[in-house]
Amino acid sequence: MDIEREIRVRAEEIDALLSAYLPPEEGLQRTVLSAMHYSVTAGGKRLRPMLMQETYRMFGGREGVVEPFMAAIEFIHTYSLVHDDLPAMDNDEYRRGKKTTHAVYGEAMGILAGDALLNYAYETAAGAFERWPDHPRVGQALLVLAKKSGVYGMVGGQVVDVESEGCADMTREKLDFIYRLKTGALLEGAMLIGALLAGASEQECRTVREAAGAVGLAFQIQDDILDVTGTPEVLGKPIGSDEKNQKSTYVSFEGIEKAKEDVAALTEHAIAQMNSLTVKNEFLVELLRYLISREK
Amino acid sequence: MDIEREIRVRAEEIDALLSAYLPPEEGLQRTVLSAMHYSVTAGGKRLRPMLMQETYRMFGGREGVVEPFMAAIEFIHTYSLVHDDLPAMDNDEYRRGKKTTHAVYGEAMGILAGDALLNYAYETAAGAFERWPDHPRVGQALLVLAKKSGVYGMVGGQVVDVESEGCADMTREKLDFIYRLKTGALLEGAMLIGALLAGASEQECRTVREAAGAVGLAFQIQDDILDVTGTPEVLGKPIGSDEKNQKSTYVSFEGIEKAKEDVAALTEHAIAQMNSLTVKNEFLVELLRYLISREK
Repeated sequence: MDIEREIRVRAEEIDALLSAYLPPEEGLQRTVLSAMHYSVTAGGKRLRPMLMQETYRMFGGREGVVEPFMAAIEFIHTYSLVHDDLPAMDNDEYRRGKKTTHAVYGEAMGILAGDALLNYAYETAAGAFERWPDHPRVGQALLVLAKKSGVYGMVGGQVVDVESEGCADMTREKLDFIYRLKTGALLEGAMLIGALLAGASEQECRTVREAAGAVGLAFQIQDDILDVTGTPEVLGKPIGSDEKNQKSTYVSFEGIEKAKEDVAALTEHAIAQMNSLTVKNEFLVELLRYLISREK
Repeated sequence: MDIEREIRVRAEEIDALLSAYLPPEEGLQRTVLSAMHYSVTAGGKRLRPMLMQETYRMFGGREGVVEPFMAAIEFIHTYSLVHDDLPAMDNDEYRRGKKTTHAVYGEAMGILAGDALLNYAYETAAGAFERWPDHPRVGQALLVLAKKSGVYGMVGGQVVDVESEGCADMTREKLDFIYRLKTGALLEGAMLIGALLAGASEQECRTVREAAGAVGLAFQIQDDILDVTGTPEVLGKPIGSDEKNQKSTYVSFEGIEKAKEDVAALTEHAIAQMNSLTVKNEFLVELLRYLISREK
């Protein structure tokens, strides 16, 4: 399987889906609608909707009900980047080589565009009630989406990350918390919502969550490893930024060798979990393996 | 009926309900949880949950299913104030005589506390699926909540308001848009969700929406009138701020006499709508009348 090609094909399909779900850029509030479009279409790997869709397919999901949730989770991911980039947060002018939303539209519109995307994510997901009124799992999926995005999910991780910046008292407990929530929670939510909507059993959902948790953690640790071992040419961003920013990472706590071992162990654990299921999705397993062992 | 006393009693009950729905201030992310508590318990008239509850009661609603939605709509109202007060937006250090959230917790935490409240609003509302799995209208109510809060509701109004600040090209069309959406949308959403959850018919929902729309508009116009005719002692804030800030208001477009006439006409229209229903809630009608004719 040419995994990079397969990923690219799916990412393009998801790009089209996102554009179709975004509201039209018209009306008196069109500035914020343009800012929403700008931030969502600025690129990205589309991992969260891709993981959701593949997990949905794995459990035999065939209806379109997963689509509004795929759009919603990417809108939530995007709003979090828009707010993260704000001057009062990371103060980034560029992301993936493009101007950040507040750099183009101004700070007030950056805040409002993030708010609008977050609201629109829930509006999009809740739209599934109208189109699939008899689907038994839409409410449950919406609750998972909110939990994984909020103060016990992504936002909780962002808060501890912001508070830990430049502080000498980073602990392993805090680092694990940030890794588990800031990125891990939405990845977990993505796979769990896919499984739920396809009608997976409680036991199957537990297995998916377990695998997704290991993937999320390994994904973060790999990020730390690449910041030390990667080359700027391949990564497309400067390396050594964590050390320069005196940022505590998994690598600074455990050393590079242990970090690599742990990524390998988490990967094997995640894949073993997925392989323990009676249903199969070869692409999904390859995608997980690729995500974790990626070199950029 | 001693309407002010009745309102006070209900507001206190709603304060208790909000405290019960707020997440506990514990865990590594406790700073943001404290900021959420701080902003929600900083006071406020609790109009939106009150209107929702009274409309629910009016249509014979007896279950607790309205309660998570009452909490959710007040969390959304609160997040919007927290973000509105940010330095990049209105840059307010005080609200209702208390320090604003970002003034106490810093700007980054102000952004994240708003985000957390917005997410938690949906988490709270979606929690109704678990507790009332057989209620037929929870999904519909959630969709109304999202629509009225987002880019075609409150956020849309905020955007046009922010863009119009200090601009000479305010038009009646823009002013109506801001009034209808920035404040009106959530008031409308509040009453509509109350009606929906109580099982009101489509026709009844239309009537409630019509009344709520008139109330929202009259409420805003009355605000403009009080900025001209009120006394700082009664209002608890300086008067003449709109003129000082060269802000276009309903009064500057229509003149004070026409504005007063329109408030009276909108009030009568709203109350006539409510009285056209076969169900009655005397307190709700008095509340609407009070809101519109208030002197502070």
